[in-house]
Amino acid sequence: MTASPFVAKDPAYALRVRASFARQGAMTLIGAALTELAPGYCAISVVPRPQLLQQHGYVHAGIVATLVDSAGGFAGFTLFPADSSVLTVEFKLNLLAPAEGDRLIAEGFVVKPGRTLAITRGEVHAEAGGKRTLVALMQQTLMVMHGKPDP
Amino acid sequence: MTASPFVAKDPAYALRVRASFARQGAMTLIGAALTELAPGYCAISVVPRPQLLQQHGYVHAGIVATLVDSAGGFAGFTLFPADSSVLTVEFKLNLLAPAEGDRLIAEGFVVKPGRTLAITRGEVHAEAGGKRTLVALMQQTLMVMHGKPDP
Amino acid sequence: MTASPFVAKDPAYALRVRASFARQGAMTLIGAALTELAPGYCAISVVPRPQLLQQHGYVHAGIVATLVDSAGGFAGFTLFPADSSVLTVEFKLNLLAPAEGDRLIAEGFVVKPGRTLAITRGEVHAEAGGKRTLVALMQQTLMVMHGKPDP
Amino acid sequence: MTASPFVAKDPAYALRVRASFARQGAMTLIGAALTELAPGYCAISVVPRPQLLQQHGYVHAGIVATLVDSAGGFAGFTLFPADSSVLTVEFKLNLLAPAEGDRLIAEGFVVKPGRTLAITRGEVHAEAGGKRTLVALMQQTLMVMHGKPDP
Repeated sequence: MTASPFVAKDPAYALRVRASFARQGAMTLIGAALTELAPGYCAISVVPRPQLLQQHGYVHAGIVATLVDSAGGFAGFTLFPADSSVLTVEFKLNLLAPAEGDRLIAEGFVVKPGRTLAITRGEVHAEAGGKRTLVALMQQTLMVMHGKPDP
Repeated sequence: MTASPFVAKDPAYALRVRASFARQGAMTLIGAALTELAPGYCAISVVPRPQLLQQHGYVHAGIVATLVDSAGGFAGFTLFPADSSVLTVEFKLNLLAPAEGDRLIAEGFVVKPGRTLAITRGEVHAEAGGKRTLVALMQQTLMVMHGKPDP
Repeated sequence: MTASPFVAKDPAYALRVRASFARQGAMTLIGAALTELAPGYCAISVVPRPQLLQQHGYVHAGIVATLVDSAGGFAGFTLFPADSSVLTVEFKLNLLAPAEGDRLIAEGFVVKPGRTLAITRGEVHAEAGGKRTLVALMQQTLMVMHGKPDP
Repeated sequence: MTASPFVAKDPAYALRVRASFARQGAMTLIGAALTELAPGYCAISVVPRPQLLQQHGYVHAGIVATLVDSAGGFAGFTLFPADSSVLTVEFKLNLLAPAEGDRLIAEGFVVKPGRTLAITRGEVHAEAGGKRTLVALMQQTLMVMHGKPDP
């Protein structure tokens, strides 16, 4: 990733985001790890295993969606004020290549942070034998839930 | 659901779709059940439990995506020829209300079946105390993989 | 269209929407007419002519998008309060069949009206020789701009 | 723009794309110009004028969509074989800021060229007083129509 053009309003953003990630049962279920965090950026990775696959032996498009929706959501959340939470309004995902390999890495990038809405884009890469392949591309709209911090 | 306007080319479509569903590790992981199938239609349901949730206690948008992407994909697959398989090209999902309740039901409906591509739409409803709430809306593009039946 | 399940907050909604439509230079440019309006519903039609076409002689996907984005936006606007305006946050459009014929009709339907955001879906049909063909399908997110009425 | 990572199969791609652009009545109607072309890349610009606006005085989302759908489509078309044509399967557009200024420039970038489908992303920038603002973000799926060259 390149250096972030954003500055987080909440100096404790990383703590806040990591605590929120830890509260997501779905991240634990699929075995996802939050691998990198910066203002306006988040990377989440997972190691493919049989429970994540679809009928052709690739990671299910829905699991890919789960990873990159979370990466985009947490990328946005890094820039939100301390007493807010994040909600996905919608996202659109293109699947470009079979999601398989040693590791999948979903990256979320804030494109436009706003007071009420934030727009992000996302990429999912598959790593295999030292090679990286772009397997999915996402575009996402988030909502800032002001005055409603995570529990 | 209303009566399907479609006729399946493959008379054994239900067997083929159910076998494909059974091979999806991801469906087992999230505890999804294929609850209804008709030409151009598929419903998949899940009972919310802690492992499927995000940080606010609702079912994760990615899990909702997994359900409805599969419902749309299998709805399309009912109309595909016997020696083909199905691939999601892309989908777009709007989250409309918190995904919580006794049961989530994702429905996929074929809008336009084509030789190479099929377009579907999807809805996810939450059932709670006998009430049904629309929680997500999807639009999806599938690809027919001719000559590549499921393993 | 079926009877609308919605009630407009602003009894003068039709006047407000029609005045807003009349202010859109783009609607005049493409020759669009607002053909029907109800709470949560709007239909806009256009007669194909050479200036609206792409290189194959069909109406350009962008013109189809212009029609259905407006139909969705005005469908949402019927339900907004009197002192607000409407903004498209995003939309997604599938092109299903060649947009040609005697007339194109774009319909917008509110799926979920909210205080800040409204979600709509849209359809574009082509009429030719008394036959109607679905040529495009849309899903859209609108924003309610409170306290900012149209000029 | 950065140097293109793609090589065009058809050495006469620029001629073919420009001829296709010239046949689009819709491009003439809105006053668009094809300002740059490279393998996997296309830029189309327009100068805002009253006929392109919506009710708030900004360029209509549908016109923005027309520009960037075309930019993405022609970006893809640069990489297609000589005897083919291009079809938009679907696109998704986020509107990020008011589309106003001295000039709008829509850029299309191929992300993944394929035999049957090509995936592109698009950006629309507004130029005003020497400043550039990102006003829209797109993600698009194209189809390669083999054996069907433009008329």
